[in-house]
Amino acid sequence: MAQSARLSRCAVLQGHLAAAREHEDDRGDGLQRCATSAAAAAVPAPPAAEMNEYLTRDNKELREAIFEFLKDPLYAPNYKLSMDGFRELTSRRVAKFVAQRFFSVFDYTRDPLKFQAALECLSFCDYSLAIKSGVHFTLCGGTIAKLGTEKHHDILRKMDTLELPGCFGMTELGWGSNVMGIRTTATYDPTTQEFILNTPTNEASKFWIGGAAQTAKISAIFAQLTVDGKWEGPHVFVVRLRDDAGNFMPGVRCGDNGPKQGLLGVDNGQIWLNNVRVPRDGLLDRFAQVDAAGAYRSPIPNVAQRFGTMVGGLTTGRMLIAQGAIDACKIGVTIAIIYSSKRPQFGARPILDYLTHQRRLFPALAATYAYHLSMQRLKKVTLKGGAEAAKTVHIVSSGLKAGATWSRVRILQDCRECCGGMGFLSANRIGPMLNDMNVDTTFEGDNTVLMQQVAKALIDQAAKAGMTAPPPPPATGAAAALGSAEGLGALLDWRERMLTAGLAGELAAAGRGGADAANAAFDDALDRVVLLGWAKTDSWSYATLAFEAARTPAALRPALSLLCQLYGLSRVEAGAECYLSTGVLSGDDMKQVHACVNQLCRQLGADGGRLALALCAGFAIPPHLLQAPIALTDWRTFQG
Amino acid sequence: MAQSARLSRCAVLQGHLAAAREHEDDRGDGLQRCATSAAAAAVPAPPAAEMNEYLTRDNKELREAIFEFLKDPLYAPNYKLSMDGFRELTSRRVAKFVAQRFFSVFDYTRDPLKFQAALECLSFCDYSLAIKSGVHFTLCGGTIAKLGTEKHHDILRKMDTLELPGCFGMTELGWGSNVMGIRTTATYDPTTQEFILNTPTNEASKFWIGGAAQTAKISAIFAQLTVDGKWEGPHVFVVRLRDDAGNFMPGVRCGDNGPKQGLLGVDNGQIWLNNVRVPRDGLLDRFAQVDAAGAYRSPIPNVAQRFGTMVGGLTTGRMLIAQGAIDACKIGVTIAIIYSSKRPQFGARPILDYLTHQRRLFPALAATYAYHLSMQRLKKVTLKGGAEAAKTVHIVSSGLKAGATWSRVRILQDCRECCGGMGFLSANRIGPMLNDMNVDTTFEGDNTVLMQQVAKALIDQAAKAGMTAPPPPPATGAAAALGSAEGLGALLDWRERMLTAGLAGELAAAGRGGADAANAAFDDALDRVVLLGWAKTDSWSYATLAFEAARTPAALRPALSLLCQLYGLSRVEAGAECYLSTGVLSGDDMKQVHACVNQLCRQLGADGGRLALALCAGFAIPPHLLQAPIALTDWRTFQG
Repeated sequence: MAQSARLSRCAVLQGHLAAAREHEDDRGDGLQRCATSAAAAAVPAPPAAEMNEYLTRDNKELREAIFEFLKDPLYAPNYKLSMDGFRELTSRRVAKFVAQRFFSVFDYTRDPLKFQAALECLSFCDYSLAIKSGVHFTLCGGTIAKLGTEKHHDILRKMDTLELPGCFGMTELGWGSNVMGIRTTATYDPTTQEFILNTPTNEASKFWIGGAAQTAKISAIFAQLTVDGKWEGPHVFVVRLRDDAGNFMPGVRCGDNGPKQGLLGVDNGQIWLNNVRVPRDGLLDRFAQVDAAGAYRSPIPNVAQRFGTMVGGLTTGRMLIAQGAIDACKIGVTIAIIYSSKRPQFGARPILDYLTHQRRLFPALAATYAYHLSMQRLKKVTLKGGAEAAKTVHIVSSGLKAGATWSRVRILQDCRECCGGMGFLSANRIGPMLNDMNVDTTFEGDNTVLMQQVAKALIDQAAKAGMTAPPPPPATGAAAALGSAEGLGALLDWRERMLTAGLAGELAAAGRGGADAANAAFDDALDRVVLLGWAKTDSWSYATLAFEAARTPAALRPALSLLCQLYGLSRVEAGAECYLSTGVLSGDDMKQVHACVNQLCRQLGADGGRLALALCAGFAIPPHLLQAPIALTDWRTFQG
Repeated sequence: MAQSARLSRCAVLQGHLAAAREHEDDRGDGLQRCATSAAAAAVPAPPAAEMNEYLTRDNKELREAIFEFLKDPLYAPNYKLSMDGFRELTSRRVAKFVAQRFFSVFDYTRDPLKFQAALECLSFCDYSLAIKSGVHFTLCGGTIAKLGTEKHHDILRKMDTLELPGCFGMTELGWGSNVMGIRTTATYDPTTQEFILNTPTNEASKFWIGGAAQTAKISAIFAQLTVDGKWEGPHVFVVRLRDDAGNFMPGVRCGDNGPKQGLLGVDNGQIWLNNVRVPRDGLLDRFAQVDAAGAYRSPIPNVAQRFGTMVGGLTTGRMLIAQGAIDACKIGVTIAIIYSSKRPQFGARPILDYLTHQRRLFPALAATYAYHLSMQRLKKVTLKGGAEAAKTVHIVSSGLKAGATWSRVRILQDCRECCGGMGFLSANRIGPMLNDMNVDTTFEGDNTVLMQQVAKALIDQAAKAGMTAPPPPPATGAAAALGSAEGLGALLDWRERMLTAGLAGELAAAGRGGADAANAAFDDALDRVVLLGWAKTDSWSYATLAFEAARTPAALRPALSLLCQLYGLSRVEAGAECYLSTGVLSGDDMKQVHACVNQLCRQLGADGGRLALALCAGFAIPPHLLQAPIALTDWRTFQG
């Protein structure tokens, strides 16, 4: 009885999947498909080439050309090196890549999708290469392109040839997430028409600066500008760190941060400035100018808004990091699913056939698709422009960066463990990715802080709109909510709105007791604030995947619909406490959710993982970038 | 109203804490303590020396002597090395340590606590050193000591001097967790009184063998024994791999597994045997003998039981790995808590003061105490002997190994992120530990498989006892269950028994449909099977901590009681879905649980983290083993 109830609920759940297939065939109802393993055959495997065509939204030829270029033996994996050896190799890799001129730093503003596409390709090969290039092109070059004017174009041209390798002097030892709080000073000296830059204390030294230890010749330095005795807030200056021969410029000193958990190819360092004189043209002056006589002018009147402009360029870096995490998940799940499908442990049964393996790898596969498509959607919004789009970009880029990188930690760890010892061997790729990328959860915005930004923006919006009472549960009821893509979306949306309204209400109430009380209330709610950041990221990613699954080419639709269900249901599982606590879902409902997740896993894993393998093939990662012997060769022939 | 209800529940929750303090002072009721931050001062900080005395249950002088020895500059951290450089350094570290003769391989059976204590000390310094020594002493030496007889003592003596470095030839490329399935063969040749060992296929090559690539001269090789045409199951042979000069013995070939995600100091390799002749005395013959004429004898009649004896020695290794993970957590949380208590981000407020930081670090601190004390209890059970103790050791050592290492992954990751970029610098220790130790979740028993072992044993016990119906919720009711240490324990116990009985009932029902149906039912329940492994580990660890907290010296009791509450409640949070689904806790109950966890975190974090810092100090990790500059020096003075 319980079994049949479960199946019929599962059948409802597969309703939209069946609907999506209605026009292709008429092989009967969803119940059968959900109930028996023979049913799994009913979801056709998506053709890999068509899927990849669908996933790749821009610059296909460029991406192919860079992937092809990366066949150069210089880019073959080498994990035996010392830190110095790996740094040297990375510098050579960057130089040869730059010499191809696949793109220009001018594309940062001219053709941002091309700019991002080129850099995205590098993380498929090696994260040190990607980050060292990213620091040069995105953080340093992009900042100069965005905040500078024509007088800085000569610098950009020299960055395109790597004549001037650049680094990004924003973070200080004492102020990581708090950029507004930096202490480096820049004072204008009208007698020589120079800015004088200083590091007043060791805490104000630029810290953790990629490229600063050995290779960078210029840096985009953030400093608090004072003109004619008046503080004007943080501004950015192009500062020459080393001369053409690599010797420090007067007043400049750099330290070496030394070995790290990963990313050994990047020479992170520390910068101290002692009365460093920067010519007047060194100020990036698109949004603020100082004339020869020392008069300061800016179209943006207040310091806080000006500061927002200065750091707005970080969004591109944040998106690149999110995409890098997603691409790493593509590589990780592909390796783990291929290997698990060929590897038996007891008897002839491959380990991928066990529910425990499926439960770790298949929701990860679904999340990877969801995040990838969400990034494509976010890029489209970014190109739109306008205040409304800017708000969305702020919220979603923060949430996706945090969500994708935190998911990456878990997904790659699961992939590594699902490959057993083989996952720990560097040659098999997952381990080194775990080491190199560990930094992505805290750099370019600490994830906890980013999730707070997401929540704050939502709470502010809700407060302005007067929405401070929790919304009623989805009108469709629990059963209907589980029964369709729309219903599942409503369930995820509701969680976001419920948390938003609840927090907005609490904070508004506390606010009536004064600002201190409001701050204290926010502080005491920080655990739920982070949950809200997750809830928003879940609902946005699910909505994207559902939208895509409904509109995708027919051959891809059934498989994407299945992934969409799996992603949505696994996020309901992640939010189980919320749904159960509020009575939106009952214990029996949750059992159905688990049973349906298990059924979807069974479908992906059936026939030796046919469907799951096809979805991995859709990522179309070429062998020289997949690299792992356990995915490319027969593990039985492995000879260490 | 909601606030006062929350506080009064919180007051109940602190009942046993108040009770524990009753004899020391009479500073009023628990409500006040829970409600205000001033109350935090009411829990006295435990004196570090007394706490460490309490936590260290055996071989104190030996541990101190080894810690003192590890001040030798040879053991100072060095993260810049290549794989070859780090292997060479590790070999020198092992050699110098062995030369001190702090313990003997004979202690494996003679004084197991001493044996384990000595090896435990090494993981405080460097995991490569610990694992390379552990493979030699525990896996190889321990197996010979346990399964061999007096004729093998000469080998053991040469292992004590490192004249014969040993490795452990159990795992094969094709069979990781499935040791019974190994394919290496050993056939007795009565004409020469030798065993002939062979690797029949590449899949049967010994794989992932620490020490095999370069350094090992002997190996304890597992092989399927055939005597006079009859298969007798897996047996262990001491096989000479390399001669004194380091050249391969006839028929032996070893490969090099190459670079790994971590543990670069250990030379893992692959072994192929081609008609390798082992003298008759090479068989470890305590539980099975072959006489000169080729007659096989064993006091253990059946292959499966004999096999159990052969691999029983793995428990020590498993316990060392669990303890290593726990000790890594001690180091990680100590570094992260100290740094966070001194590091501001916005204004002067240290980041440890934020609930988000406290929520990551303080339950981790509590879990570390719980697991450490659980290991001490397990060691006591291990020494007891007897069938009942053996069963407990099997269940608990499997569960603690899996639980402690999986927790370590999460805890060290949280510690790393809580230190921001500083956590990614190798010098600060947490990153390298994350890399080196990643292997601990799958070696010496894959965690998923171990959790299944725990669950299987419990389900079997329940089935035998006829307990196949879920037990009623704790008789005390939810409020009372949350209101005392005993009630909290009952809640955690109930989850274990509920899952056990539920699964036992389902499997028994399915079993009536035959063995295939029973297997299929187990298979479909694998996700809950792993949950049961966790539930058991949680309840055992909580019970241990509660027992200890009630009996600990008076000066330590209030702090340990607080940790006990925090650990128990955080495990209730982890099992929230189970409690909510079954109606054992309501949504409001769960809100109280979260509120109380937050309150306990506030208490640990009050006054600059006074109490949390004191509990870290209780681990008494000496500076040369804590290593991290962010914990030992003022971060403001950091110069890379």
